[in-house]
Amino acid sequence: MPGHIVTSYDTDLENLRRSISEMGGIAEKMTGEATQALVRQDGVLAQAVIAADKRLDTLQRDIEERSVLLIARRQPMAVDLRETISAIRVSGDLERIGDLAKNVAKRVMAIADHAPAQKIVLGVRHMSDLAEGQLKDVLDAYASRDTKAAQDVWNRDGEIDALYNSLFRELLTYMMEDPRNISFCTHLLFCAKNVERIGDHTTNIAETIHYLATGENFVGDRPKNDASNYATVEPGA
Amino acid sequence: MPGHIVTSYDTDLENLRRSISEMGGIAEKMTGEATQALVRQDGVLAQAVIAADKRLDTLQRDIEERSVLLIARRQPMAVDLRETISAIRVSGDLERIGDLAKNVAKRVMAIADHAPAQKIVLGVRHMSDLAEGQLKDVLDAYASRDTKAAQDVWNRDGEIDALYNSLFRELLTYMMEDPRNISFCTHLLFCAKNVERIGDHTTNIAETIHYLATGENFVGDRPKNDASNYATVEPGA
Repeated sequence: MPGHIVTSYDTDLENLRRSISEMGGIAEKMTGEATQALVRQDGVLAQAVIAADKRLDTLQRDIEERSVLLIARRQPMAVDLRETISAIRVSGDLERIGDLAKNVAKRVMAIADHAPAQKIVLGVRHMSDLAEGQLKDVLDAYASRDTKAAQDVWNRDGEIDALYNSLFRELLTYMMEDPRNISFCTHLLFCAKNVERIGDHTTNIAETIHYLATGENFVGDRPKNDASNYATVEPGA
Repeated sequence: MPGHIVTSYDTDLENLRRSISEMGGIAEKMTGEATQALVRQDGVLAQAVIAADKRLDTLQRDIEERSVLLIARRQPMAVDLRETISAIRVSGDLERIGDLAKNVAKRVMAIADHAPAQKIVLGVRHMSDLAEGQLKDVLDAYASRDTKAAQDVWNRDGEIDALYNSLFRELLTYMMEDPRNISFCTHLLFCAKNVERIGDHTTNIAETIHYLATGENFVGDRPKNDASNYATVEPGA
């Protein structure tokens, strides 16, 4: 049997895909706008990002329940079953990406009173641009079931991590130079960490695409460069 | 019909519960031991925590796939369907808790060369003790389907957040006093944030217990005290 009989089951699957695509669009927009708000010190935009997260949460719960109901009612097998498992996984990652972008947006207020070190904020934006591009690519790969493109995204996560590590050291050095930098640099440190984790969730989605295509969970160590967990910087060094 | 006919379906459900219980035990142990490693500067214990995370990841994938297969094969309805959705959700939260504990353990090395401010490390441990207790309570509530106990856990998440906020300010003040404190205080800041997020995932599990019992997703704002996203501290203040 080349495929299942075309029924409302296909419509259900198509609707799931559409909801994931909506979630992806929102998560991508939130990621970009949170950093934009940071660069421009734009409190109104930050509030918009915070507000957008509610829709993501609702969509995620909705996708989860619809996926499970679909499985219960239609008893899909093999690739169709993986479709629904993948929908649950991807929506979970997109929901987490929204949380992380929202947290960046919340910190816009905390650094608003400080003349920010524009160079460092731009470092965060550079990371965020990379993360947003990766997220866009992985969502395209998911929509077109392109495992090659997913693998490319997976390979590139190390770039975001490397940027984060250098930003981590830079921020610590900056704090050491002047205690008045400590407060807002701490918030920028968390912003950078959030963007790094957006990259991790994007990598998760790439792995889900592999699972969707092959039925195998991805094995192999990620190209992680998470040296910042071990990094220390000395004053005057 | 008071319940479904007793079949291997019950065995499957029971096995799912057992796997979740195993995950819960590992996550709880990792949370406690990561902070212990931090307090004692114990690199060997930290490595053990890092190693334990692999088992959690495997169990989570396993629970996710078994839940979905169970749904596909048995077509459970109503509360039985919620059982499996809940298993997917809870295992996701426990896997994240493991990641967060692992990240705390990784940072043990970064602060190992510094004579740590014992008072602040103890502040992190105090938070972690609270988080571990909450996690234990919510796992008990999940095992016994006790919505009242779950609600209690949910109500208490604000305590962990409040501790985190005061620790956040304390750490920033400490950094401002002496630039030699900046590096390891930054790592402790991330440790504290990780523990705060372990509390959030525990709260998620409490909400899943509510969903499992009632079929309704929890509505109502969490008793969040996440003021640290907005907090700033001035030198000499």
